[in-house]
Amino acid sequence: MLIVHVHINVKPECVDAFREATIENASKSIEEPGIARFDFLAQQDDPTKFLLVEVYADPAAAASHKNTAHYAKWRDAVAPLMAEPRSSVKFTNVFPGESSW
Amino acid sequence: MLIVHVHINVKPECVDAFREATIENASKSIEEPGIARFDFLAQQDDPTKFLLVEVYADPAAAASHKNTAHYAKWRDAVAPLMAEPRSSVKFTNVFPGESSW
Repeated sequence: MLIVHVHINVKPECVDAFREATIENASKSIEEPGIARFDFLAQQDDPTKFLLVEVYADPAAAASHKNTAHYAKWRDAVAPLMAEPRSSVKFTNVFPGESSW
Repeated sequence: MLIVHVHINVKPECVDAFREATIENASKSIEEPGIARFDFLAQQDDPTKFLLVEVYADPAAAASHKNTAHYAKWRDAVAPLMAEPRSSVKFTNVFPGESSW
């Protein structure tokens, strides 16, 4: 499995537009066959900070996601809304095992 | 819901002991009634960095977790294994809604 956490800082005046675009992207992404979770989280102590938790069956599923129409639409929509380039960290699951995602 | 991400840096010589103690804690924590997920993740580019993804029904469930015997055992077991104090970030779910955890 491949778990990717994407950290995103949004311009304060763009928070509502970012949330709307990202809910749409997450709703479509979770329907992809190789995606087990696609969680969109808001940091509690800062309304401009968000995290995407993307849980892929394997690296091929992550690559496939980048080729979808909904990813391209989201990427272009949020480009002007972000305060800085987003960053990501890759993880492997230790617990639970693959069957519990 | 309350989602807590706990970032932990472990001493290089303590990684195996840390993984063993944390798998035990996660296995017991996921059985708590107010805990929807308790994921233990390893950062891919640094074998000493780990993340706990703790998904609670509410803040009361998070407080209750701190009162369990398995939490106390884990807390004491990992204290000498960490390279620095752990840090945590609190999140709220935007997507999906509460029923999908």
